[in-house]
Amino acid sequence: MEPIYAEESARHAQPLPLIPTPDRYAAIRSATESLCAPLSAEDAALQSMPDASPAKWHLAHTSWFFETFVLGPAVPGYRAPCAAYHHLFNSYYQSVGTPFLRPRRGLLSRPSFDEVVAYRRHVDAGMTDLLATPDIALRSGLLAVIELGLQHEQQHQELLLTDVKHLFFQNPLRPSYRVGAQTPGAAAVPEQSWREHPGGIARIGYDGPGFSFDNERPRHRRLLEPFALASRLVTNGEWMAFMADGGYERPEFWLSDGFDTARAGGWCAPLYWERGDGGWQLFTLSGMQRVCPEAPVCHVSAYEADAFARWAGARLPGEDEWEILAAGVAVEGNFVERGLLHPTSAGGEGDALRQLFGDVWEWTRSPYGPYPGYQPPAGALGEYNGKFMANQSVLRGGSCATAQAHLRASYRNFFPPSARWQFSGVRLARDLR
Amino acid sequence: MEPIYAEESARHAQPLPLIPTPDRYAAIRSATESLCAPLSAEDAALQSMPDASPAKWHLAHTSWFFETFVLGPAVPGYRAPCAAYHHLFNSYYQSVGTPFLRPRRGLLSRPSFDEVVAYRRHVDAGMTDLLATPDIALRSGLLAVIELGLQHEQQHQELLLTDVKHLFFQNPLRPSYRVGAQTPGAAAVPEQSWREHPGGIARIGYDGPGFSFDNERPRHRRLLEPFALASRLVTNGEWMAFMADGGYERPEFWLSDGFDTARAGGWCAPLYWERGDGGWQLFTLSGMQRVCPEAPVCHVSAYEADAFARWAGARLPGEDEWEILAAGVAVEGNFVERGLLHPTSAGGEGDALRQLFGDVWEWTRSPYGPYPGYQPPAGALGEYNGKFMANQSVLRGGSCATAQAHLRASYRNFFPPSARWQFSGVRLARDLR
Amino acid sequence: MEPIYAEESARHAQPLPLIPTPDRYAAIRSATESLCAPLSAEDAALQSMPDASPAKWHLAHTSWFFETFVLGPAVPGYRAPCAAYHHLFNSYYQSVGTPFLRPRRGLLSRPSFDEVVAYRRHVDAGMTDLLATPDIALRSGLLAVIELGLQHEQQHQELLLTDVKHLFFQNPLRPSYRVGAQTPGAAAVPEQSWREHPGGIARIGYDGPGFSFDNERPRHRRLLEPFALASRLVTNGEWMAFMADGGYERPEFWLSDGFDTARAGGWCAPLYWERGDGGWQLFTLSGMQRVCPEAPVCHVSAYEADAFARWAGARLPGEDEWEILAAGVAVEGNFVERGLLHPTSAGGEGDALRQLFGDVWEWTRSPYGPYPGYQPPAGALGEYNGKFMANQSVLRGGSCATAQAHLRASYRNFFPPSARWQFSGVRLARDLR
Amino acid sequence: MEPIYAEESARHAQPLPLIPTPDRYAAIRSATESLCAPLSAEDAALQSMPDASPAKWHLAHTSWFFETFVLGPAVPGYRAPCAAYHHLFNSYYQSVGTPFLRPRRGLLSRPSFDEVVAYRRHVDAGMTDLLATPDIALRSGLLAVIELGLQHEQQHQELLLTDVKHLFFQNPLRPSYRVGAQTPGAAAVPEQSWREHPGGIARIGYDGPGFSFDNERPRHRRLLEPFALASRLVTNGEWMAFMADGGYERPEFWLSDGFDTARAGGWCAPLYWERGDGGWQLFTLSGMQRVCPEAPVCHVSAYEADAFARWAGARLPGEDEWEILAAGVAVEGNFVERGLLHPTSAGGEGDALRQLFGDVWEWTRSPYGPYPGYQPPAGALGEYNGKFMANQSVLRGGSCATAQAHLRASYRNFFPPSARWQFSGVRLARDLR
Repeated sequence: MEPIYAEESARHAQPLPLIPTPDRYAAIRSATESLCAPLSAEDAALQSMPDASPAKWHLAHTSWFFETFVLGPAVPGYRAPCAAYHHLFNSYYQSVGTPFLRPRRGLLSRPSFDEVVAYRRHVDAGMTDLLATPDIALRSGLLAVIELGLQHEQQHQELLLTDVKHLFFQNPLRPSYRVGAQTPGAAAVPEQSWREHPGGIARIGYDGPGFSFDNERPRHRRLLEPFALASRLVTNGEWMAFMADGGYERPEFWLSDGFDTARAGGWCAPLYWERGDGGWQLFTLSGMQRVCPEAPVCHVSAYEADAFARWAGARLPGEDEWEILAAGVAVEGNFVERGLLHPTSAGGEGDALRQLFGDVWEWTRSPYGPYPGYQPPAGALGEYNGKFMANQSVLRGGSCATAQAHLRASYRNFFPPSARWQFSGVRLARDLR
Repeated sequence: MEPIYAEESARHAQPLPLIPTPDRYAAIRSATESLCAPLSAEDAALQSMPDASPAKWHLAHTSWFFETFVLGPAVPGYRAPCAAYHHLFNSYYQSVGTPFLRPRRGLLSRPSFDEVVAYRRHVDAGMTDLLATPDIALRSGLLAVIELGLQHEQQHQELLLTDVKHLFFQNPLRPSYRVGAQTPGAAAVPEQSWREHPGGIARIGYDGPGFSFDNERPRHRRLLEPFALASRLVTNGEWMAFMADGGYERPEFWLSDGFDTARAGGWCAPLYWERGDGGWQLFTLSGMQRVCPEAPVCHVSAYEADAFARWAGARLPGEDEWEILAAGVAVEGNFVERGLLHPTSAGGEGDALRQLFGDVWEWTRSPYGPYPGYQPPAGALGEYNGKFMANQSVLRGGSCATAQAHLRASYRNFFPPSARWQFSGVRLARDLR
Repeated sequence: MEPIYAEESARHAQPLPLIPTPDRYAAIRSATESLCAPLSAEDAALQSMPDASPAKWHLAHTSWFFETFVLGPAVPGYRAPCAAYHHLFNSYYQSVGTPFLRPRRGLLSRPSFDEVVAYRRHVDAGMTDLLATPDIALRSGLLAVIELGLQHEQQHQELLLTDVKHLFFQNPLRPSYRVGAQTPGAAAVPEQSWREHPGGIARIGYDGPGFSFDNERPRHRRLLEPFALASRLVTNGEWMAFMADGGYERPEFWLSDGFDTARAGGWCAPLYWERGDGGWQLFTLSGMQRVCPEAPVCHVSAYEADAFARWAGARLPGEDEWEILAAGVAVEGNFVERGLLHPTSAGGEGDALRQLFGDVWEWTRSPYGPYPGYQPPAGALGEYNGKFMANQSVLRGGSCATAQAHLRASYRNFFPPSARWQFSGVRLARDLR
Repeated sequence: MEPIYAEESARHAQPLPLIPTPDRYAAIRSATESLCAPLSAEDAALQSMPDASPAKWHLAHTSWFFETFVLGPAVPGYRAPCAAYHHLFNSYYQSVGTPFLRPRRGLLSRPSFDEVVAYRRHVDAGMTDLLATPDIALRSGLLAVIELGLQHEQQHQELLLTDVKHLFFQNPLRPSYRVGAQTPGAAAVPEQSWREHPGGIARIGYDGPGFSFDNERPRHRRLLEPFALASRLVTNGEWMAFMADGGYERPEFWLSDGFDTARAGGWCAPLYWERGDGGWQLFTLSGMQRVCPEAPVCHVSAYEADAFARWAGARLPGEDEWEILAAGVAVEGNFVERGLLHPTSAGGEGDALRQLFGDVWEWTRSPYGPYPGYQPPAGALGEYNGKFMANQSVLRGGSCATAQAHLRASYRNFFPPSARWQFSGVRLARDLR
């Protein structure tokens, strides 16, 4: 597969504010389409479960976002190519209409893939004109919404990959999304060590000059007790030790909801694992592969992560603990630009904090909620994040399917604790003293 | 749309046994593909409900049938193009393996539409060779299975249409399957009159020289009481009178299961009807149209048909009553070859029995069961019909989506009494004296 | 347990019309209460599943029937003790109001058991007065409804027992309803032989002077092909041979719906069977007992009965075949009056038809439907039977929980083919020639 | 109804450690039975939903607790009266066996109410002997478990009331639990004012000499931003203003999960509210009553509470905010000892913090989780609280169904945010500056 963000791969941190220049707009939009290159129109139309969406729907919805929140309000006389799209590709914004029901997104053979691409072209033309407007730099509110649209597009790039992976796994043919690419062998992993922190009052949340989501704001104070964070992610090998010790059958390690969920779902290993003749295998975007003991465990729910931590005599990190230690680390790692689309082992030596960024999203023990003083934006965009602040857990750090420039130490991802189809893994923490 | 069986359209009855000649094989197989001509690969991949299948699956399954029951057993060294198809495209034959679960048929973006067409080509090549074998005429058992495969293919042609119609109806865009064709205006319908029958002992079931399904055999005696059959189908106009009289809300007309089903489903009109500004409209394979009062009502369940009949002071016919009166009537009517894909009004004058064949399948009051002395075939093909003889009602006469040469007076179709997505309608009957 | 119909136990057939005399009214009403003698108020209040009702509800509903259809219409100024009972104890009569939802019958701790008994007293007082009216014998329509009320009461007596049995089985304590009674040892069973019938035109249905339900009428002609009926019921021993031969796992014996139902329910033996240390045991109204190989199999669904018959190279009887052979046999057997409340072995010698009446209801292959010319009564009582004529199978012959005087050769019981909690068993049949 | 804790009603705070003296044991145990005085055995046997339990089950389970965790381990040769109780009355302790499934608790007519009372007597005899042991005061671990058993019993006293209320509401007769008692008229409520707090580092959690649950420990530091807490609870009158303003229909006030839950459940008012001829009525343990505008709103979910707060321009309090202001307030209020079993209005004048304790549990915005350094106890009692720390929200302050001596400022109750059948209400909070 071609690199999807050629111009960004070299970048490490985020020194300057992101600005939605025409080039950046074009690069991010075309990256979404690059992700669809290995897909047929059929692949792009199917929906494997209510939580996932067809690739085609992601393509259309991200365009709907620019149309609804940028072109419609900002371009006099803008005409949508099809009035029905306003309903079909609204995800969950009640303030701007009635969204088409999520579990029915896989019933739309029309508009066709090609029509959706044409829709993207239509929106792109409008956006390109708008971005070329002479006074655009003066309209900071508009630029902020455009930037939000680009960040939103990057979020859906990741979802597009996780949703295709889930779809392909339903097919007994086990199709491979990524054809002809080599998956590098995993390096030996260093011993897990503990990075300690003395606690005290510290600040988390974003207040820099660049983009951030509303849920990362305001930056605020936290009081921490002394703690330690593991130097690397939990590996498949360690997970197999948990399984071998009866981890999935012993209720003493589990939250009650978690144990019920695991039993109801017949869980006895991470999602995508299958027992084969030669041992455990797992499904990847490159097809079935042997489970590599050195690679980080992936596709586990927060319930499993929590049970593993208890078994290991540790706990999951708080999102504040994670952010405070991550704040000083460069945002580098196995992101989508590397093209592996699968987590890989930590490698290296010494006890530096590894893999904080990329590879797998790291479950925290923090329920997803508002920061002190949090205010959602006025209007429909206030529905972007705030209304989901119940029954979800925070994940941190990005994954092998995340765009590198999309990530920050303060970035908060969130999913229900039962979710497994994201690239989600585990880093341990523990109390000190 | 092109006529799908050019060479058959002129044929009326079934004077001679059908023989699976190479030409007939080719005509029927290509007819299936003609039905897919208006469909994109995306259209063909989606599944709207567990009862329906993707068009692509119908294409593959009918080929699987020839492969499994003809080529595999009869052609030494026959090789299937993909071993997994044996599982994926098995509908319900437990004797030859574990079928892929029906509600998951819509999760298969692979094999692609093109790959499925290639699979058809592979099977067709094998079948063409086999049918050209010099001694083929001597292998009557084999010919019988091939003929069964062709009849099976014709059944799936009809299902392909009903399933596409159901899928397209889920889409708020209300796509049209049949583009550019004219739907002829409906003619005035004659008054309904009653064709009487004195009762007595009569024979039903098939024992002629041509093809029949096992469930039509053996031909056997029935004792009938005097009865009368309506001269034509119930119309939309009559159905609207039923609705206006509170038909859907008054439990006194309904079977208990029927009333519960109607309430749970929110039924207040036939499937595909929608109240518009200018009155009732209905969804057809040519898109939304005004409800034509003269046309036969269609897409009603057996529960609704039964309630209507009770409201009308009549009852549904028994399948034996229907067959005995239909036996003397030419198998002519609005079949799939006519290309309307929608029932049309009876037209004409006088009180001849009209519309017995084509237009809509007619619900009977007969539960689907074995005829006296019925024996399913030995082996897996014994699963074809016999194992469904519970909780289903018999329908007779074929529809606007049925191939004309596929039909007979003795033909027994069957669906659960709650099913509405077939082209199913109503003809009344009543006791005499 | 005391005999519940002392004055009726000696009676065998039904030589004269039943008349709802005050004595008969009192005997049948008190029999219902006798059945509750072993129950606590708690036992009588609980509901184990939506298909079953609390014993207390049966007590109340049967009184509601007399109140609604007899006292209300016939006694000027009759006052119901509680207006809400009209709603609470309506089973399914939509014409007289909105029934309280069946699955919620187990949520009614009030009225208390004692209040329900007081309600019965109130109704009984009204009925006793009415039956003592001088001109009552002249009001034949009224007498017919009263007789219907008594027959209805007897139906609920049986349901009360089957529902208590199902409830007690949910309790790990496995309570015994029938305490201190001896279950007689089972006698050896004679070989199964076949009673042949030459077929031809015969009449079934009731047209005698006594009571019958509307669904047994009109008496009408049937055309039968030659058949044979097994001389006795299928035994537990024979059923265990079916199980040992993989009967529950082999789809070739099963209807498709039946196999799916069996798999979804995890069926591997009749309901109430449990594998114990010393072999199979079953739950009875006298508690857990060893499975007696000679006793008739019981608590099997029509699906299982049908699969067993296919395994045995036979089939289930038609209800007409059954009735024609049963018409000449005295209505004697192991009925509720004997107090066993469990089927017992056939005993005896020779090849007479045994056990046609009592022991277990015998599944037929006949879907429950209207006889030719059937008309339900006008008004609400038309809902008694007619509206259930879909998706049910006919059973014949009564069981060890049926009142003997309640039964006739023409009596039609009906349940969905998946039902197992009635005392239902199997007699085989086969085609001749 | 008699006061259930005569000797405790006068007590206000909790000056000294609670000790499980024989008198206290007897008083608390008999209080549970006093709560059952208005119930028949039938009332006590029924279960209205999987979340609720029959009263009889509460009686038995609380005894099982003493038997399993005290008598079994501490009394050599202790014999349980029935081995099966160990299974039947285990709520959720996986470490000591397999609990009987919660949704099936309403299927147990046996053991009878009287047998369960006898079981209580048996356990009480054992406990009384044990508490009279000379050296008991030396066995502090044992005393701690006994005290936990008493606190556990008090929790089930409240659940018994909420579960009976829910059960009675299912019955169209709307039975009254509390007969003959007067509900005092509601006093006028003072204006809501705001009690401010400057924020900073404060401590919450329990570290006193008395009893506390593990989830209240350890006492630890919190960093608070400046906030204000409303001086009283939200009233029915204020809630009706929310309803009149479209509160239940306007998604902008709601969390996404909350809005979906409300729509799926058809919520348009608090649980137990019904629109009558003369306006809104609500079901209480004293039967149906008019909604009193001055009384606190009750039986709302956390979702509704959160939506109301957003509508009101406020938010729910954090549990730490609540505790810090409550720490200085006497634990007095409308508790179960007062016998009203219904919240009442605040009354009084001035802007003191009112109703912090009693009346209704107050939803907080805090997800239920472990305090920093939390460790569940070793062994089965570690399952008491810790394993429920997911998907639940914390409530504070106790209700009109809580025992006064059971409550503390640090007490943490928890329920899923969708739960409505507890006595749960709302106090507003807001950020300062």
